[in-house]
Amino acid sequence: MRQSHLFTKTRKEVPSDETSKNATLLLRAGYIHKEFSGVYAYLPLGLRVINKIIEIIREEMNNIEGQEISLTALQEKSTWDATDRWDDSKVDVWFKTALKNGTELGLAITHEEPITKMMSQYVRSFRDLPKYVYQFQTKFRNETRAKSGIMRTREFIMKDLYSFCKTKEEQDHYYKKAQDAYIKVFKRLGLGDITYLTFASGGIFSKYSHEFQTICENGEDEIYVHHKKKIAINKEVLTDEVLKDLDVKREDLSIEKASEVGNIFSLGTRFSEALNLSYTDENGEKQLAWMGSYGLGPARIMGVIVESFADDKGLVWPEAVAPFSLHLITIAKDKENDSYKKAEEIYKKLTDAGVEVLFDDREESAGAKFADSDLLGIPMRVVVSDKSIALGGVEIKERKSDKSEIISVEELLKTYKPNCE
Amino acid sequence: MRQSHLFTKTRKEVPSDETSKNATLLLRAGYIHKEFSGVYAYLPLGLRVINKIIEIIREEMNNIEGQEISLTALQEKSTWDATDRWDDSKVDVWFKTALKNGTELGLAITHEEPITKMMSQYVRSFRDLPKYVYQFQTKFRNETRAKSGIMRTREFIMKDLYSFCKTKEEQDHYYKKAQDAYIKVFKRLGLGDITYLTFASGGIFSKYSHEFQTICENGEDEIYVHHKKKIAINKEVLTDEVLKDLDVKREDLSIEKASEVGNIFSLGTRFSEALNLSYTDENGEKQLAWMGSYGLGPARIMGVIVESFADDKGLVWPEAVAPFSLHLITIAKDKENDSYKKAEEIYKKLTDAGVEVLFDDREESAGAKFADSDLLGIPMRVVVSDKSIALGGVEIKERKSDKSEIISVEELLKTYKPNCE
Repeated sequence: MRQSHLFTKTRKEVPSDETSKNATLLLRAGYIHKEFSGVYAYLPLGLRVINKIIEIIREEMNNIEGQEISLTALQEKSTWDATDRWDDSKVDVWFKTALKNGTELGLAITHEEPITKMMSQYVRSFRDLPKYVYQFQTKFRNETRAKSGIMRTREFIMKDLYSFCKTKEEQDHYYKKAQDAYIKVFKRLGLGDITYLTFASGGIFSKYSHEFQTICENGEDEIYVHHKKKIAINKEVLTDEVLKDLDVKREDLSIEKASEVGNIFSLGTRFSEALNLSYTDENGEKQLAWMGSYGLGPARIMGVIVESFADDKGLVWPEAVAPFSLHLITIAKDKENDSYKKAEEIYKKLTDAGVEVLFDDREESAGAKFADSDLLGIPMRVVVSDKSIALGGVEIKERKSDKSEIISVEELLKTYKPNCE
Repeated sequence: MRQSHLFTKTRKEVPSDETSKNATLLLRAGYIHKEFSGVYAYLPLGLRVINKIIEIIREEMNNIEGQEISLTALQEKSTWDATDRWDDSKVDVWFKTALKNGTELGLAITHEEPITKMMSQYVRSFRDLPKYVYQFQTKFRNETRAKSGIMRTREFIMKDLYSFCKTKEEQDHYYKKAQDAYIKVFKRLGLGDITYLTFASGGIFSKYSHEFQTICENGEDEIYVHHKKKIAINKEVLTDEVLKDLDVKREDLSIEKASEVGNIFSLGTRFSEALNLSYTDENGEKQLAWMGSYGLGPARIMGVIVESFADDKGLVWPEAVAPFSLHLITIAKDKENDSYKKAEEIYKKLTDAGVEVLFDDREESAGAKFADSDLLGIPMRVVVSDKSIALGGVEIKERKSDKSEIISVEELLKTYKPNCE
């Protein structure tokens, strides 16, 4: 994409009520737009990042037999009365609205109830289970405070996967599979090294649930990390019994600030009982389905990536989620200049080869272009100038490094293999 | 995908309040789920169709320099007060809700206001225009009656493109370009032959707006079609003056029932004036931007496709939007049977080659499988049986044809080139 074509621009000012590091940088770089407190829109660069995160999650959910659907935001009271989660005194983040005839509606805060109800139309016999269903769908939550930028908002896309199994054993087996899939997701997102499988409180159906926590200076949580075992324990469950369960010693744990980027939970038969999701087993007897839920917030992940990797010059994207692989910059302002023409030629060759390139073809000073490039955070900067050409090619510099080097155009083209978009 | 893996099933019964042909068939085939009247969820097969429609539209919007973003559903009153479209007495399809502190919010019915406000942060000079921005985003509309299945719902994804130009001339030029892009979209969707560019009433900024109307037995509209010129006139503007404008004679028009599948509209400076979207021109003078809006509803299109092509046996999808290209069916129930093994082998070869295949590997009777195949509406059915193998290969039958023929497995593999998904 040509930067001159992009409607967004970098800017110095952000809305005065913006206090989070992630939203401040993303607003300055033109990745997002603030509609009002806790509600953000995604602009072209931001949407590219979110979509890359979504695509990585989608692939891993498909790899564990997930079937993708899309449920609705508008919800009827009756669906939620079954589990007693409708009343504002029970769940305090509902946005409620109403039909013209006065019928009360809610905007989905999550989807356990509607998906259980929907599945009950399709599950009859033991032959129909297990099944795994997921979606990327907008959740609405009426948060009282919304001060964490895109990490805790009133409207956000969430990936929620639900498992429907015949027995506790089948559910436990899938739970482990989902856990492994989550580890893969964070690895692919570039967060593998700093994200910990964290033991948290379970419920009546399992001793533990699990959070995925990413070490992060501005994180809201504190976790106890066992670096060697690559696990962590949530403060709320740090007891001698748990230490024994996990075979770790208290002195080997270090306390770290972290942000939750995902969670997985065994739901047991709580929802299947309330919403009548049952099947007939091999002996002709009626049994309740066992369920699990597995959440991931793409925007939350994007926020954590910003918080974890950004430096004082701006954003720093891991390759897998960067809006573009290369930031190609021409220093020449005159389109007839040889180095400008060379940049155009490189842009054409790279994009023809399927490489994702943002081409800064604007009539700006070199200094302004370099500052914008640092703020935008694309992993590799490629500068074409009279000087670089005289030295034998283009000047490349990784965003996270201070060192640049000259390589030939042929080497550049050879290094960047086509991306499959 | 293996049909045994799919959680949905075909069924005979639909909710008693469902009266539309499109939703009745889509519910019976397991493409959608009815949350309540006018609110539908998309299940795996339905989501595949919607996503194919979206991808075709996205490509054509990118081809006319559209930049994709994603705005928010939650909206503040102040944004809409500017154009006097907040009050329920002015716009009667709002769903309203509120923050915990009592601040009133609305769920976006459309996005002219928020996008104009957002763009005003990025447009300063004539150098910043023209720009074209679009999204696929959920709209909420509090419809009193919702009886048209997925064609008129209370919650739906809409593609809305907005153009921001310097002058009326620039806007008119882009309007024509968008019009051509829409014609391409409908052609690619398989609706080209029955969709008409329809002249409708404009407003203070242009004489006409345009609808795209698809001829459809159960359509809500009546249009006057000039078959030779491939245009139509909306009843509301059928005057002698318009006939003269379009150089057509009243006697050459035939009245047809149709459904609106898209519309394009010149907004002039109505929104840029109200929300202060201006730029400094070449002479240093402040000017208002000229705008246009261009809507398309993927679910509405999906509904019209169902209404237009379905027959008494079930759905009939055009190739471009079908959830799968091939419906491969094995008649043998015994996995050790040679023809079952042959079907497995064909399934593997086709999917490895990137062909989208739904493989009916269930233990059902041939009759049940054929009836389901007709209901699901995948363009080509491929049956593998002992008989087909004895005759030299597989039996293929187009969904819209009654004739079947035997072709060799090699020919089948050669015919279906890999799809790029």
